[in-house]
Amino acid sequence: MRSVRFRDPAGTVRTGDWANGKVVFGGQTYERDAIDILPPCEPTKIICVGLNYADHAAEEGLEVPDRPMLFLKPPNALAGHGNTITPPANKERIDYEAELGVVIGEQCRNVVEAEAMDVVAGFTCVNDVSNRDDQQREQNWVRGKAFDNSAPIGPVLATPDEVPEDAGIELRLNGETRQTSNRSEFIFSVPELIAEITTYLTLEPGDVISTGTTAGVGPLADGDVVEVEIEGIGVLEHDVAMP
Amino acid sequence: MRSVRFRDPAGTVRTGDWANGKVVFGGQTYERDAIDILPPCEPTKIICVGLNYADHAAEEGLEVPDRPMLFLKPPNALAGHGNTITPPANKERIDYEAELGVVIGEQCRNVVEAEAMDVVAGFTCVNDVSNRDDQQREQNWVRGKAFDNSAPIGPVLATPDEVPEDAGIELRLNGETRQTSNRSEFIFSVPELIAEITTYLTLEPGDVISTGTTAGVGPLADGDVVEVEIEGIGVLEHDVAMP
Repeated sequence: MRSVRFRDPAGTVRTGDWANGKVVFGGQTYERDAIDILPPCEPTKIICVGLNYADHAAEEGLEVPDRPMLFLKPPNALAGHGNTITPPANKERIDYEAELGVVIGEQCRNVVEAEAMDVVAGFTCVNDVSNRDDQQREQNWVRGKAFDNSAPIGPVLATPDEVPEDAGIELRLNGETRQTSNRSEFIFSVPELIAEITTYLTLEPGDVISTGTTAGVGPLADGDVVEVEIEGIGVLEHDVAMP
Repeated sequence: MRSVRFRDPAGTVRTGDWANGKVVFGGQTYERDAIDILPPCEPTKIICVGLNYADHAAEEGLEVPDRPMLFLKPPNALAGHGNTITPPANKERIDYEAELGVVIGEQCRNVVEAEAMDVVAGFTCVNDVSNRDDQQREQNWVRGKAFDNSAPIGPVLATPDEVPEDAGIELRLNGETRQTSNRSEFIFSVPELIAEITTYLTLEPGDVISTGTTAGVGPLADGDVVEVEIEGIGVLEHDVAMP
């Protein structure tokens, strides 16, 4: 099942089925232009994974970690499908990073790997927008990763059965492919990530784990159009207005 | 004014006036034991400041930073007055850190220093509980600082007029004073912190900025009772159960 959260023409927030770019709810079909598409969930936190692909670790000149490298994006980071993001002003380098997002379905702590998929509501597309100027200067990546609009997400929440274990992940910048990767290349699997994170933190329904990016990250410029496509989920698209 | 959020005997969440350890709401006075005291706000994020006192920076062998060092605690970190916190298991060193918490009163971004106090609802007490084992091993302090129960906070929200510019901050461990500091010793003032943070992140009502700790941090043990007292606010007390 693929669902989309949206605001209907009356302003009411709904969750409907996603069908060929249209949304169906309560027996009614809404055209894309008639509704506002919202992020697919309302996370209390987004837990991001750094360096979860060996090729991206190599590209950044970093060793593959012995446990997941984690960082946080708070709710202010959220942006949606079809939106225009505005990164912080006066930075040399704002990068895109296509990622598979795991949406949590229930409150959980101390989850064991064998049961981890039970707490997953589904998967979505994430762009982990990164402000390299500040990321390189700070211990914790707050200015670098947690700024407003740094987490475009959605539009589709696809249940786990829709997304193959080897789902392809692609990022296109102005129509040109810049990143291609595959869920089967993860260093740490989704169950391993959930087990490790919930050793320390309670996850809430709607929380998101963003599973890391592959090689091919690069800079964004004013007017750029970004598409993140994940097999079995669909396409997240947003554009960029540099301040 | 000093207020406290609490759950009354009927289970309803209220915000009442704090008077000599009792709470007054709707003409009724509640004894401490008749109510559950809650954290004074419901933050979407806690933004913590590292190394905001020169003496603590020296104690950790670190240079005073040229801009605030920031890190994040998500809502799962919250704990309240009178609660028992349980840090992560099997760690050598879990530390206390007494801090002044700034509670935000309105949604804001790009706040200038001269107007920063307009977005402050008030001040509260925070213990920035820190898991040093992991903090020393990770780039971003997620296991080290964002674990469940890592942010005991409250109980009182005091309006800014109640808290002197040179308010004393003290931490007592099992009745013995371990940290003493003073708001006037901050490297970065509250308005400077708000201006810097809102250059990057939108703050929401109830969000907290925890302003950093002074020298004297030290380890917690099973059964310890921690008190954080700040002049003009009151005393946050909690105890510790090591898993």
